[in-house]
Amino acid sequence: METLQLLSSNRSFGGWHRRYQHESEATGSTMTFAVYMPPQANDNNRVPVLYWLSGLTCTDENFMQKAGAQRMAVELGIAIVAPDTSPRGEQVANDEGYDLGQGAGFYVNATQAPWDRHYCMYDYVTSELPALIEANFPVNSRRSISGHSMGGHGALVCALRNPERYLSVSAFSPISQPSQVPWGQKAFTAYLGDHQASWKEYDAAHLLANVTNDSSMIPALVSQGLADEFLQEQLQPEALQDAAKATGYPLTLERHEGYDHSYYFIASFIEQHMEFHSRVLCQS
Amino acid sequence: METLQLLSSNRSFGGWHRRYQHESEATGSTMTFAVYMPPQANDNNRVPVLYWLSGLTCTDENFMQKAGAQRMAVELGIAIVAPDTSPRGEQVANDEGYDLGQGAGFYVNATQAPWDRHYCMYDYVTSELPALIEANFPVNSRRSISGHSMGGHGALVCALRNPERYLSVSAFSPISQPSQVPWGQKAFTAYLGDHQASWKEYDAAHLLANVTNDSSMIPALVSQGLADEFLQEQLQPEALQDAAKATGYPLTLERHEGYDHSYYFIASFIEQHMEFHSRVLCQS
Repeated sequence: METLQLLSSNRSFGGWHRRYQHESEATGSTMTFAVYMPPQANDNNRVPVLYWLSGLTCTDENFMQKAGAQRMAVELGIAIVAPDTSPRGEQVANDEGYDLGQGAGFYVNATQAPWDRHYCMYDYVTSELPALIEANFPVNSRRSISGHSMGGHGALVCALRNPERYLSVSAFSPISQPSQVPWGQKAFTAYLGDHQASWKEYDAAHLLANVTNDSSMIPALVSQGLADEFLQEQLQPEALQDAAKATGYPLTLERHEGYDHSYYFIASFIEQHMEFHSRVLCQS
Repeated sequence: METLQLLSSNRSFGGWHRRYQHESEATGSTMTFAVYMPPQANDNNRVPVLYWLSGLTCTDENFMQKAGAQRMAVELGIAIVAPDTSPRGEQVANDEGYDLGQGAGFYVNATQAPWDRHYCMYDYVTSELPALIEANFPVNSRRSISGHSMGGHGALVCALRNPERYLSVSAFSPISQPSQVPWGQKAFTAYLGDHQASWKEYDAAHLLANVTNDSSMIPALVSQGLADEFLQEQLQPEALQDAAKATGYPLTLERHEGYDHSYYFIASFIEQHMEFHSRVLCQS
């Protein structure tokens, strides 16, 4: 593991939570990620991986500290990998807003200056990071992906564009059609410019509406709280449901009365999401 | 609930996490606390309460966000109340150190200026807060108490001095004999002055060694990680074990290889602690 620098290590539920830094080719910057490795993982028993993509302002730490997923990771025998939400550092472009720049990479490959130099989170998450994880940890190549808000958008886009790389996908409170809402329009304008065609490549509702091949469909679960303060203006998960209905995509959208956009919502339903992923992830 | 100001509300595991502020008589200041109320609690089904005391630098939020206790609170039918770790505000005395003043009340009644004006966390936790909770929420008067580090010290002291008010006590990584260690000596000198007799009233190992009446003994559980960076210098839980052995106190000290001082340790064993408390708390 010569390319990985260990930042910290905490024993957790009999396994280990560890944070690493490395020099990323995709982003041309130092990247940080966290790994939770259940105790049953070793070179003779490689386990599958759930990738988690976090939301605006988050780092690799929020999910590991607040979601309570480790207990189920041990019960099901699944590793969890949580990357940071953007490249960071003094040399990396930034913005004063919480919803653009560092902490807000939106899981795209930016094409516009100054963002195109480092903001290639799409390549990082779908290619570089899984290769790094599979080369350095006792995991196999069975992958699923999930995320929250901006990370829910990221998880859906990564999975819809790469159904051969992921066995299942889920999202909490995702930005479901970023092309149509303020958060997405601001980020896509900055990162991708005015090229509407490239916006569509990162719009989950659009991608979902254009899946035509049954073999490209993987199980998908979306959970949305009905007291979420961003539901109407930014999230709009009904767009996913409409698109899935039109194409026959196996998407389940669950609405939960009273739940908001916080990690209290994620913690309440992470067990269900982990069990959902384990149904395909843990078959051998 | 006219005296309570609701700060926030999050649905969580079918119940509610809510934060409140109120004007405290004990501390002469605004105090903040959090409540987790499981869904089965109502005026016809009052539930018992586990009080949680947090450690240095914490507020009412750390435990609720990071311990993952809500799932077990629902399963067992227990409410959780987590007060802030000190009075706060511009008019409240403070110190530049993280281990004295705001965020570091040590659960004592201070007798020395300037701390004696507001730092009466012992009275607040053992008397005012339970009375307020029992008057305003669907709970009964069955109480247990737990905490971490400085809060583990607080939980043990509150329970050992008031065995008629609590049915059980537990602690993670407690400051077990504060009179003998740097954190405790600094805080006790400031809050209590040089009166060694008053130090003993807030020293768990001393109190434990002086319990003579079997009817004053309640079940006690202490969990300690062996990779805890504060174990030797500040925590010293073997002092509790020695004292309990001498008096026959029903204390179990569990040592856990590899675990540190963080919430990753607490989250790993909170289920065990909640089950421990439920054995006495949930009998009717």
